[in-house]
Amino acid sequence: MAESTVRVNAAVLVIGNEILSGRTQDTNLAYLAEKLNEYGIQVREARVVPDVEDAIVDAVNALRARFDYVFTTGGIGPTHDDITADCIAKAFGVPLVVDEEIAEILRRRPSPPEVMEARMRMARIPQGGGLIRNPFGPHGFYIGNVYVMAGIPQVMQAMIGALQGQLRRGETIRSRSVTAYLSEGQIARRLGDIQARYPHVDLGSYPFYRSDRYGTTLVMRGSVDADLDAMLAQVRQMIVELGGTPVDEGGG
Amino acid sequence: MAESTVRVNAAVLVIGNEILSGRTQDTNLAYLAEKLNEYGIQVREARVVPDVEDAIVDAVNALRARFDYVFTTGGIGPTHDDITADCIAKAFGVPLVVDEEIAEILRRRPSPPEVMEARMRMARIPQGGGLIRNPFGPHGFYIGNVYVMAGIPQVMQAMIGALQGQLRRGETIRSRSVTAYLSEGQIARRLGDIQARYPHVDLGSYPFYRSDRYGTTLVMRGSVDADLDAMLAQVRQMIVELGGTPVDEGGG
Repeated sequence: MAESTVRVNAAVLVIGNEILSGRTQDTNLAYLAEKLNEYGIQVREARVVPDVEDAIVDAVNALRARFDYVFTTGGIGPTHDDITADCIAKAFGVPLVVDEEIAEILRRRPSPPEVMEARMRMARIPQGGGLIRNPFGPHGFYIGNVYVMAGIPQVMQAMIGALQGQLRRGETIRSRSVTAYLSEGQIARRLGDIQARYPHVDLGSYPFYRSDRYGTTLVMRGSVDADLDAMLAQVRQMIVELGGTPVDEGGG
Repeated sequence: MAESTVRVNAAVLVIGNEILSGRTQDTNLAYLAEKLNEYGIQVREARVVPDVEDAIVDAVNALRARFDYVFTTGGIGPTHDDITADCIAKAFGVPLVVDEEIAEILRRRPSPPEVMEARMRMARIPQGGGLIRNPFGPHGFYIGNVYVMAGIPQVMQAMIGALQGQLRRGETIRSRSVTAYLSEGQIARRLGDIQARYPHVDLGSYPFYRSDRYGTTLVMRGSVDADLDAMLAQVRQMIVELGGTPVDEGGG
């Protein structure tokens, strides 16, 4: 069986007090996870840290050493609490320098000197870094394996879109899923047996509680379609034999 | 000014492949952040890790050493991918033992032996741990400063509700917020000046893009109402002087 075994992994680092206070519901992680999988990159860890220098520097250095890529969101605007660029530079031990391409974009919108000075903060990137294009305004940047993007979802999505084709590509993981109103206890032993037969497919059981009933969604994730289809057939058969009705949830 | 300076902090550890694949949008972090703040506990970091032993053990040990509390969600059901209890026991270097109170709850629902055996996995807690009550079924548990809860939001919410009054209480952080259709560049310098006058209040600027316009929500967070109100007045005045219209977003 011709199976590629190249896995490229990534961590997502969400930067911002508003996520940790509960004021803002993060949606960037889920978006990035799906988009990066399309690019052949698997998100294997995520962290959320506050707008605090030590917390950001420590997380960047811990994650960039352990994962092929790190994608950060948040903290690249012009206000006093936007300290991500400073922290990334510190993590890499390099100074911030003005990027002339970003500066030129910023100068296109005329502003009073005080406002322009604040906006020019966004032109600073760590020495040795490159740009992440953003059609909406100032660019993001990358240095080494760390990609630094905006926190506003629409802007972050434009930035990750601009990276298509520029990142190292590994396997894309595909999935199948099926739901049944059976308890996890009912299916646990047989599910474990099925998992044991397909060690290269990740078989997850996700219980839910809906309309006063417990149910479970069974999700198969792997890179070989034939294995996924064979496992799905066995899971569906298990559900029927246990008296349940399998409801296909599709896959991708 | 009678200001309490006792801060109690926490980390949230979300356990589950489905969050990292983007299949499931986590909502537990935002819920926990707000609920724990009501209890006088501030969430200062969050991590999401997959259903992988080393990843869970390492994260638990890193976080429990650095924060007053760690709250985990996910991975405490009866299926093969529910390995949280095993990992917490390993992180603390203790065996898993059957808790008779949980076992008794599980035995109340008659099941075939195979099903009961799977369900009894949920009765195992690390030696030396205590229970987190859950009216819906099997309890969660805690050991040391680590509190282990379900991933299903309704069940997790019942568990954190059951902990009310049992955790060490620090300051509750309150907030004020106001929105304006001004760019961050326009407000940056004056906002920095206001932040500098109130070092004990955290002044965050959260830009958004809505109906083709950029705007910013300014959020003040602190423990002294008088400081929050004074800062809010200055931020509102700044917005008016810059030609904007302050729209109060309330607080809590």
